[in-house]
Amino acid sequence: MTETNNQQFFSTSMEKGATNSITDVEGVLVGHETISQGSTQTGVTAILPHGGNMFRQKVTAASHVINGFGKTSGLVQLDELGVLETPILLSNTLAVGTCFNALVDHALEQNEEIGRDTGTVNPVIGECNDMFINDIRKRSVRTEHARSAILSAGKTFEEGSVGAGRGMMCYSLKGGIGSSSRLVKVNDHTYSLGVLVLTNFGLMKDLRVGGNPIGAYWSEQIRPALHEDKGSVMIITATDLPVSHRQLQRVLKRAVTGLARTGSVISNGSGDIVIGFSTAEGDPSLQESCLDDAFRAIGEATEESVIRSLQKATPVTGREDFRPATWTEMMEEFPYF
Amino acid sequence: MTETNNQQFFSTSMEKGATNSITDVEGVLVGHETISQGSTQTGVTAILPHGGNMFRQKVTAASHVINGFGKTSGLVQLDELGVLETPILLSNTLAVGTCFNALVDHALEQNEEIGRDTGTVNPVIGECNDMFINDIRKRSVRTEHARSAILSAGKTFEEGSVGAGRGMMCYSLKGGIGSSSRLVKVNDHTYSLGVLVLTNFGLMKDLRVGGNPIGAYWSEQIRPALHEDKGSVMIITATDLPVSHRQLQRVLKRAVTGLARTGSVISNGSGDIVIGFSTAEGDPSLQESCLDDAFRAIGEATEESVIRSLQKATPVTGREDFRPATWTEMMEEFPYF
Amino acid sequence: MTETNNQQFFSTSMEKGATNSITDVEGVLVGHETISQGSTQTGVTAILPHGGNMFRQKVTAASHVINGFGKTSGLVQLDELGVLETPILLSNTLAVGTCFNALVDHALEQNEEIGRDTGTVNPVIGECNDMFINDIRKRSVRTEHARSAILSAGKTFEEGSVGAGRGMMCYSLKGGIGSSSRLVKVNDHTYSLGVLVLTNFGLMKDLRVGGNPIGAYWSEQIRPALHEDKGSVMIITATDLPVSHRQLQRVLKRAVTGLARTGSVISNGSGDIVIGFSTAEGDPSLQESCLDDAFRAIGEATEESVIRSLQKATPVTGREDFRPATWTEMMEEFPYF
Amino acid sequence: MTETNNQQFFSTSMEKGATNSITDVEGVLVGHETISQGSTQTGVTAILPHGGNMFRQKVTAASHVINGFGKTSGLVQLDELGVLETPILLSNTLAVGTCFNALVDHALEQNEEIGRDTGTVNPVIGECNDMFINDIRKRSVRTEHARSAILSAGKTFEEGSVGAGRGMMCYSLKGGIGSSSRLVKVNDHTYSLGVLVLTNFGLMKDLRVGGNPIGAYWSEQIRPALHEDKGSVMIITATDLPVSHRQLQRVLKRAVTGLARTGSVISNGSGDIVIGFSTAEGDPSLQESCLDDAFRAIGEATEESVIRSLQKATPVTGREDFRPATWTEMMEEFPYF
Repeated sequence: MTETNNQQFFSTSMEKGATNSITDVEGVLVGHETISQGSTQTGVTAILPHGGNMFRQKVTAASHVINGFGKTSGLVQLDELGVLETPILLSNTLAVGTCFNALVDHALEQNEEIGRDTGTVNPVIGECNDMFINDIRKRSVRTEHARSAILSAGKTFEEGSVGAGRGMMCYSLKGGIGSSSRLVKVNDHTYSLGVLVLTNFGLMKDLRVGGNPIGAYWSEQIRPALHEDKGSVMIITATDLPVSHRQLQRVLKRAVTGLARTGSVISNGSGDIVIGFSTAEGDPSLQESCLDDAFRAIGEATEESVIRSLQKATPVTGREDFRPATWTEMMEEFPYF
Repeated sequence: MTETNNQQFFSTSMEKGATNSITDVEGVLVGHETISQGSTQTGVTAILPHGGNMFRQKVTAASHVINGFGKTSGLVQLDELGVLETPILLSNTLAVGTCFNALVDHALEQNEEIGRDTGTVNPVIGECNDMFINDIRKRSVRTEHARSAILSAGKTFEEGSVGAGRGMMCYSLKGGIGSSSRLVKVNDHTYSLGVLVLTNFGLMKDLRVGGNPIGAYWSEQIRPALHEDKGSVMIITATDLPVSHRQLQRVLKRAVTGLARTGSVISNGSGDIVIGFSTAEGDPSLQESCLDDAFRAIGEATEESVIRSLQKATPVTGREDFRPATWTEMMEEFPYF
Repeated sequence: MTETNNQQFFSTSMEKGATNSITDVEGVLVGHETISQGSTQTGVTAILPHGGNMFRQKVTAASHVINGFGKTSGLVQLDELGVLETPILLSNTLAVGTCFNALVDHALEQNEEIGRDTGTVNPVIGECNDMFINDIRKRSVRTEHARSAILSAGKTFEEGSVGAGRGMMCYSLKGGIGSSSRLVKVNDHTYSLGVLVLTNFGLMKDLRVGGNPIGAYWSEQIRPALHEDKGSVMIITATDLPVSHRQLQRVLKRAVTGLARTGSVISNGSGDIVIGFSTAEGDPSLQESCLDDAFRAIGEATEESVIRSLQKATPVTGREDFRPATWTEMMEEFPYF
Repeated sequence: MTETNNQQFFSTSMEKGATNSITDVEGVLVGHETISQGSTQTGVTAILPHGGNMFRQKVTAASHVINGFGKTSGLVQLDELGVLETPILLSNTLAVGTCFNALVDHALEQNEEIGRDTGTVNPVIGECNDMFINDIRKRSVRTEHARSAILSAGKTFEEGSVGAGRGMMCYSLKGGIGSSSRLVKVNDHTYSLGVLVLTNFGLMKDLRVGGNPIGAYWSEQIRPALHEDKGSVMIITATDLPVSHRQLQRVLKRAVTGLARTGSVISNGSGDIVIGFSTAEGDPSLQESCLDDAFRAIGEATEESVIRSLQKATPVTGREDFRPATWTEMMEEFPYF
């Protein structure tokens, strides 16, 4: 699947960033730790707003819960104070406690003042349930894995069946990590908005790409890997737009437009959560009327990120030798376009 | 445009109700009062959960604000108490006060106990800004118009450029009232979920029908009627599913999936509000896991309602002789399918 | 009751503004229109953030719903966009529509661009149900009354049984309008925070003043004017602190501490709403850690405002010759201190 | 301090339950694990709605965030689905991850279906920052401690400096665990509502007991243990009232009235969270108008619980030999009544 073909799918009206990924936002880093052994197919993904000390250089942040069937941790304080003070970790559902511990370890190491002169620290962790591929009951994620995801974070990163995405399924296919970005022009300045998703939701029959009902077609050709939609999707958004907490939250609320365009009906069991931050320094100064392009950008980047999480996913065989089909395999066997 | 053609547009997976409209929900009534004279092109639409005394037979209700740039009235109490106790009125933005007065008149008339033995009454009014077609500054809506919309409500009603929809525009075309319904099967019982929309949002380039980028095509053929997206959309939802307030609110949150599939980016200036009620009597008893079909139903019915509001709209010439193109005209001149 | 005596009641830790009222915040104006004739005992109160054109010089604003049993209008947009663009009107519950109309009239008059080049306007109206004293079914408030309240607004204003407070009852006594203010020092700068309340809630037995259970004592002496607690309280807050929308909302959430200290249990039927604005210009710049004094200030000013609404209330005889006792009468007959 | 004296403090209008504690609600159990060694002074407290399998017998639940400066985990799903499916654990802030792990361990042990046939489990954990007394950086809480708190839970439990309350401070005094209950009569039936608090907030000067400014008096006598208000308070509420999720949330919102009456201004750094559940089985059936007594009950029980957490607290010497004064010591040296 070439980028050229991909562009057919989307009537993208906005320019993409240089790498078409969340790290197009200056300073943002992403790291993965993948755990793959037999029925253990899981991992951790870390998103860092910047490479410095997050506790001392907090960034403006917000969240939006599309559907709250999920165990995401840290949102209460994030939205009260409007700041993020740790990296964001993504992993499997039962690893949230361990990721919490890893983020606390990391913050205590870097900041002697925590628990002495300042208060404590607010770890932010998102999760999806990878139980169909990964033996989630084994609790395989250790704090070292989370730590490694943080420490290995860089501007270049893989998508697909890596990190937290290792055991995820999306639209009955292999899912995982996807990312995309858009440029937002305000007056004479060009800003970036990037999205990284962890996809683990949806039934094959609902999948749409650029409006095309590929999933309906495919699900007539094969019997999709059976599972109810017990999944979730984490949508992490970065931008350097100088937005206030309120404005950022307004932007995040629009991620659902992109999600819906891929076919999601936001099912009961799917914890669909958007977490976002702005790396802009100084007081927020964006005019409300300039937000429309940011609204368009998050929708487009979310839609493309979800599709990329499918396109980039490599085959994974997991628990009870379960191995969902990949997008690539389906496109080869049942080409749609 | 025949219904057969219409069905091509949507990969509708769910069965529709008998009339494919909100009044497929037993007891629900809809009435319009259209005001059309020169630069005055506006009106009122009333949605009644039942034909009885709403103040004495309140129904379970909820709301969800997709984007709060709007003057919708009555939501504070609706969500605190979880009930609706008046008809829902839709009109133009500056007519909210008058509709409030009309609903109070109506309630006082029917209920001598209001303001004596019981407390007061909570009018619920939604609105869109029809200023491009209607001379909204004239304040043409009178309480008699609102009253007439309520009193004329019936099971059969028109869609398109009628009632509150008279002066509305959607995707740079003539918009207005649209409706659709789906059947939801739970165990051995068949329930209905119906949607009625008042559409006044979107830019032509964004319009998608069944995933097809018709709007992008059309906006290359003609220069669309110029306007920024200052519009809004009201999404009224009725069901006889025995849902609790919390469950109903979860359902309403999914209307945005249908909206997004028609191309909306939920722009800054668009007040996008969902108000819903259940006509089921007795204590709510629906299992949470049975909600997925209701989630799918509201998305599909909202998507189709928006498209129907375009398809049913007849031409209206309004303020400064402005007359946006209709869907029918565009399909004739620039057929897409 | 002298101010000296009043000071005994409260262990006020913060300094008050020059007039101990909401107009201590530079620029803020308050106006009343009182309607008093037989069984019609009601009115309108207007609070203006400044004397200029509100639509063109919007101010940062937020709201907080303590209990949503009420018909307050305009909050959806207020919290989406974080600004106030009209005066705030207070009146009786069934007059909300008329006040909406009056605010639209006023905005259209001043701004030819509304409904032409810009969108519409978002009127903000708070209300309490004065049905025990006022014959609320008569709908006596006219747009002229609301207009007059706006136009007569000044820095000096009356408290007690005036304006919207004319027919209100609080803790089974005559209630109405009360106001108070506190000074908030941040670094080298002194800011003001002022509160104006419209009180119409509570049962006599619950009234506490400065922690003293006066209401319990009084309700053993007399049989209080009978009524269930179907009332409400509107808490309008002004400040010149340079707060963001999010910070202002955090401040508003603390008004309930003052309300609770007067004895309120926030009963089911009481719509308790806080609406606030900041007159500060420029980007918000207040450190989060500087908010504690603002939190203390709103609690103290709300508590004192409620008590002042009682202390300043003069006797009103209304519907069916009902005439609740006043604080002053009770203190004379049953002195507590 | 005898119960008789205590009763003087509060003009309690409602009858208390048999033990005046949260376990007056039939079936509710509380367990503590206290960790006390040198500078380690912390622990875990578990609240169980019933002694059965929580994952299979979920209970109606809700939460309310008074101030979100805190790391409480599990609220997103709690409020989406309206149910609690694990015990509630309370501990110190940095132990949330470990408590998460312990609750997952416990649920996996009891339920083989988790991660196989059903989805995962939603652990609910509240926390306060005990850094002034406990060396929180040591991370002394282990999963065994949490497990032990759960397994030891019973109907009888200690209050004061035990469990999660070991290292807490409240109003500059030794704080910790407190509990209280009230009986709520609806028609012919008597229900219970119980509160358990973990107190770690407030400055001495603000403390009020039954309206009396004891804290102001005491803080003139001694220099209170220095600390900013970086604390928090967790308010756990149990009831057997047959309330819906929406109604329960309305009840929880009133806990703040009791908190405010003890003198709290809800400072910036204090994460004040209310979590509640109903043990009633079957569909909710309470009339809205019957909620007023529940509103009164939670206020009274919260107020008394906070004061009891002070009264029951025994001296603890912790990090750097810091030892805050206890209520009992203060009352002996500086009697107020």
